[in-house]
Amino acid sequence: MENFVFNVPTKVYFGQGQIRHLPEALAPYGSKVLLVYGGGSIKKNGLYDQIYQVLADFEIVELPGVEPNPRIDTVRKGVDLCRKEAIEVVLAVGGGSTIDCAKAICAGVFYDGDPWDFTGDSSLITAALPLATILTLAATGSEMNAGGVLSNPATQEKLGFGNKILIPKVSILDPAYTYTVSKYQTAAGSADILSHLMEQYFDKTPGTEIQDHLAEGLMKTVIELLPVALAEADNYDARSNLMWASSWALNGLIGRGKSGAWSNHAMEHELSAYYDITHGVGLAILTPRWMMHVLNEETLPYFVRFGKNVWGLTGEDEVVAIGGIQKLYEFFVDCDIPMTLPQVGIDASKLAEMATQAVKHSTIATRAFVPLKETDVLAIFEASMEEMVF
Amino acid sequence: MENFVFNVPTKVYFGQGQIRHLPEALAPYGSKVLLVYGGGSIKKNGLYDQIYQVLADFEIVELPGVEPNPRIDTVRKGVDLCRKEAIEVVLAVGGGSTIDCAKAICAGVFYDGDPWDFTGDSSLITAALPLATILTLAATGSEMNAGGVLSNPATQEKLGFGNKILIPKVSILDPAYTYTVSKYQTAAGSADILSHLMEQYFDKTPGTEIQDHLAEGLMKTVIELLPVALAEADNYDARSNLMWASSWALNGLIGRGKSGAWSNHAMEHELSAYYDITHGVGLAILTPRWMMHVLNEETLPYFVRFGKNVWGLTGEDEVVAIGGIQKLYEFFVDCDIPMTLPQVGIDASKLAEMATQAVKHSTIATRAFVPLKETDVLAIFEASMEEMVF
Repeated sequence: MENFVFNVPTKVYFGQGQIRHLPEALAPYGSKVLLVYGGGSIKKNGLYDQIYQVLADFEIVELPGVEPNPRIDTVRKGVDLCRKEAIEVVLAVGGGSTIDCAKAICAGVFYDGDPWDFTGDSSLITAALPLATILTLAATGSEMNAGGVLSNPATQEKLGFGNKILIPKVSILDPAYTYTVSKYQTAAGSADILSHLMEQYFDKTPGTEIQDHLAEGLMKTVIELLPVALAEADNYDARSNLMWASSWALNGLIGRGKSGAWSNHAMEHELSAYYDITHGVGLAILTPRWMMHVLNEETLPYFVRFGKNVWGLTGEDEVVAIGGIQKLYEFFVDCDIPMTLPQVGIDASKLAEMATQAVKHSTIATRAFVPLKETDVLAIFEASMEEMVF
Repeated sequence: MENFVFNVPTKVYFGQGQIRHLPEALAPYGSKVLLVYGGGSIKKNGLYDQIYQVLADFEIVELPGVEPNPRIDTVRKGVDLCRKEAIEVVLAVGGGSTIDCAKAICAGVFYDGDPWDFTGDSSLITAALPLATILTLAATGSEMNAGGVLSNPATQEKLGFGNKILIPKVSILDPAYTYTVSKYQTAAGSADILSHLMEQYFDKTPGTEIQDHLAEGLMKTVIELLPVALAEADNYDARSNLMWASSWALNGLIGRGKSGAWSNHAMEHELSAYYDITHGVGLAILTPRWMMHVLNEETLPYFVRFGKNVWGLTGEDEVVAIGGIQKLYEFFVDCDIPMTLPQVGIDASKLAEMATQAVKHSTIATRAFVPLKETDVLAIFEASMEEMVF
């Protein structure tokens, strides 16, 4: 296990009706609030009205319209609003995209340049407005961590940033707010959670039994309960387990003490940057192909462990290893996730260009579980054009 | 899953050599430090000298001699010292007993009455000195949580207290500091970790798959690595996994969203209060007997899950359930933990009296996984007089 610092001070109010604690949670930070949200689903499900009810004593300025794969333009707009209105605290209400956008706004207020700079150098983040979140989609873990991802359509780039001062001060996690999330987005969100876990699980740092066992526990939780949430949208237990799993998959518990580049995220960010597809769906498509591509004599034990401990398989090592990959693929198919690139509108025309960018924008060529060159990424993209056959 | 608040802001510096961060970690809280420690093992292993080296710019006042099962008298002494010396921050160096004692001191400074009062009413804790810890024993989890346990030899009481303001601000977790822990204390500490996990795992709150899978992951980590640490005292990977498991077994991750009284701790606290035995050993002795006592038609599924997911057993439900209990018992035996009460110097003379106190000092008669009356506790104590036969 490697040395690390773990410090996640977010105060999480978990459970149905916890929004009643919002006023006391925000009060220490100020009374002038920037309310950041997305496409308006919170108006349909009543959450928007609830917020205005409980925050009757606060002054609220709104930044609606944050996009999935949030755009740098929206961040810039938010920074301007914060300065103009002397905002004291930012309240992000939505999924990971909204929270990520809000994080960049919180930091951008104290930065003289363009907040897109953060994606190249997060050390430019030196101060930030306090951030609170109300989560409406179990997926990215942004509600309890320091990172975010932004898109720049002008340059077709989708890149990350992060700084510990961006960790939300308060997050309200009410599983009932995810009852109205579509099956498609529910499945995509869970694919994102699983991907976070797998990106950290498949790692060669020795002596990380605790991280690995905990990752297996979270994967099994998602694998058991996503089908329940898909079958019964308002199943509280399923929604609550998925929501809490999203936070723990990516707040340091699973990854601290390990190191290495995230292969599937590096590749998927190019798909999203070029085609604006749903992040979790891109990850679901790529991951089993990546697994088959990197499975070799040296990595076999990791996939055997995955097949045994996550999917409960037994038998010969190679059978268990490939069986685990097949199980994962079939799980995504069964959850109605489109599992080829053409199904999400991606043809072969830009695969090579995206492969080049994936290597350029990341350290997967040197620091990944199995280092990936452009030819490797291209092979994984090409394998993603057709259904897998086991 | 029940509603809950999760908020563990402790900044953990994990890994070998992290003590170099101690000055920067303490500086925000002040320069006048109360150094709380136990029997002097930190002088033998060099940690004491290291502390004075890195804290050359701090003024240190000492409170040595904290007992295993820390006594209220030592707390009172520490409170007096803090007041007399105008201490600004408390640094506890040791295992759970030292940290628990330090927590009571931190709170006692701001309380006009006797700190023993906290064990009856933790709401009397309204302010506290900031606490930092350097952990030297993987066991109680006190390094990353809000609670503690104190002993009062005058009244033969051992009782808990807790308040979120007592959560350590900083904890340095260097697994190498546990290399010199004896086999006996290493095994007892891991039995304590396992007990924390089992006390929370065996709980009837529905819809807690995430907590249960994570508890299983932590239990498997301890079960795999305790034997390694016993065989090779300076095995860094084993020591680091056990140390990190101690923190996560009892910082809220496993227990939040559930409820219920802790049966084995309630019973063991009486053994320790009357006979001053090692807490983890008492728990190891009691737990398998408690399991056999509460195993019935209704609780069978919980024990089947335990046998399958923690011990990898398969077969008929009843065989798996009892097999899991047997595996746990044999694991403790294999780790050379004395597994009967007479082996730790407890005879039958006070069993009935301790059973009465266990029910009186806790809510196990009403809120436990299986409610326990005095006759139940007595039966478990009596079963603990002899070796188990399966």
